[in-house]
Amino acid sequence: MMLINGQPHDSVSAFDRGLSYGDGLFETIRFEQGRAPLWTRHMQRLAWGCERLRMPAPDIVLLWQEAQQVTRVQASCVLRITITRGPGQRGYALPVPVSPTRIVAAFPMPVVSSDLYTHGMRLHCCRTMLADQPLLAGIKHLNRLEQVLARAEWNDAAIGEGLVCDSHGNVISATAANLFAVIDGITVTPAVDRCGVAGVARAAMLEAFPNCQVRDVSLDEALCASELFLSASVRGILPVQAVGDTVYAPGPVARAMQQHWRELGFAVECA
Amino acid sequence: MMLINGQPHDSVSAFDRGLSYGDGLFETIRFEQGRAPLWTRHMQRLAWGCERLRMPAPDIVLLWQEAQQVTRVQASCVLRITITRGPGQRGYALPVPVSPTRIVAAFPMPVVSSDLYTHGMRLHCCRTMLADQPLLAGIKHLNRLEQVLARAEWNDAAIGEGLVCDSHGNVISATAANLFAVIDGITVTPAVDRCGVAGVARAAMLEAFPNCQVRDVSLDEALCASELFLSASVRGILPVQAVGDTVYAPGPVARAMQQHWRELGFAVECA
Repeated sequence: MMLINGQPHDSVSAFDRGLSYGDGLFETIRFEQGRAPLWTRHMQRLAWGCERLRMPAPDIVLLWQEAQQVTRVQASCVLRITITRGPGQRGYALPVPVSPTRIVAAFPMPVVSSDLYTHGMRLHCCRTMLADQPLLAGIKHLNRLEQVLARAEWNDAAIGEGLVCDSHGNVISATAANLFAVIDGITVTPAVDRCGVAGVARAAMLEAFPNCQVRDVSLDEALCASELFLSASVRGILPVQAVGDTVYAPGPVARAMQQHWRELGFAVECA
Repeated sequence: MMLINGQPHDSVSAFDRGLSYGDGLFETIRFEQGRAPLWTRHMQRLAWGCERLRMPAPDIVLLWQEAQQVTRVQASCVLRITITRGPGQRGYALPVPVSPTRIVAAFPMPVVSSDLYTHGMRLHCCRTMLADQPLLAGIKHLNRLEQVLARAEWNDAAIGEGLVCDSHGNVISATAANLFAVIDGITVTPAVDRCGVAGVARAAMLEAFPNCQVRDVSLDEALCASELFLSASVRGILPVQAVGDTVYAPGPVARAMQQHWRELGFAVECA
């Protein structure tokens, strides 16, 4: 089910700036038995993104009501909230007054094999590099062609994600998940202040595991890590089994984060 | 008037990847008395963009027929063609099969004061810098948040455009036009192989003025240029009168390119 500006509907104006320029933001939120354990973090990131893009912040209470309405029929599902700058004339200048478009839609939970949680996921090492753009880094905006191109690099169903680097040889993330590594016994996650998305599952883990360091992580370091795993707000904590020919075994830090994910209230079909 | 996949319509599916990810391309094409002098160049860039984004190329004959249909009521107008990767499931993976969305819409010609063609336009020097992304440079894709942020930097009606640089201190373009400068007697235009858009008016001028050099141009060089002017497929050739406090006078190269613009078949309300 989908609501657009509160009305059951499944199309938007062809003049919407979300379509014309990717001028907007989105969140994908996991609902578990009618609850959304990371809701507050999603709303914080959305408000932060609106501020960065100079868009009015959406009404959070209204979003929650609409979320309840669209998730009612499927208690465990993925909610996508999209906020765009709304319809506009031709041209980049901000519309005055602005009338944002609010899309709230429920999707079925993706099926993720429990084997992936137990033994890990295979990753492709992407050639597509993320550009440095501090003005857009961290937020979950609608300009996602880099992720589309990175994801288009492989077509092997045995590969679940792609490892994406910046142009300086640092790993940043997967195409749709954040990255953690254990390097010399220290848990680290790449900084996302020049590119990448500040994931809400990542934020939850950083709060629960305060010894985890946020810093630049070179591809070489990641390939030599004793553990490598992904975090994503829908799929949770996924160990990495291999990046190309480099093989990893799921380790104790990934298992501890999976345990914390369960404690947050998410089901994990896993070891 | 607007056609979506050939049908009179003004909305698109909220599942369209153009909206979800900015996954598509556009062209804005000036029609003058029913003719589009740069049509072929626009179609070449669109086909090139489709190839770069791994999208099927649109049927050019069909686009021409639809362009004729929507521009019939206003013989001089701006046509916007938007091609997206069409509807898709949640997630970045390319949809199989792909069913692109084709939007063909006519807009009134913007009113540009003849004074701007004669005496030049004032420019703001933007703080927003364009990120280096060779995989997307040159093409006119739908990921335009950088341009939106750059254009949002000023709100003074006396300023017509913004000068935008990359992160290395090179000027690249205006927010919605390409840039030319005359430096030490040589006409130059910034390279657009790391960021920026390869404009069709720019391409037409490069063909007609083969001595023009394509190279990196530093902001300092641009500020010391003897001429600075813009090219855009709708507005044509616009001299720059000032960038912030730096003042320019329209010079002979801008006038020669304005003359060529007229010879291509465009009306110019100008000296």
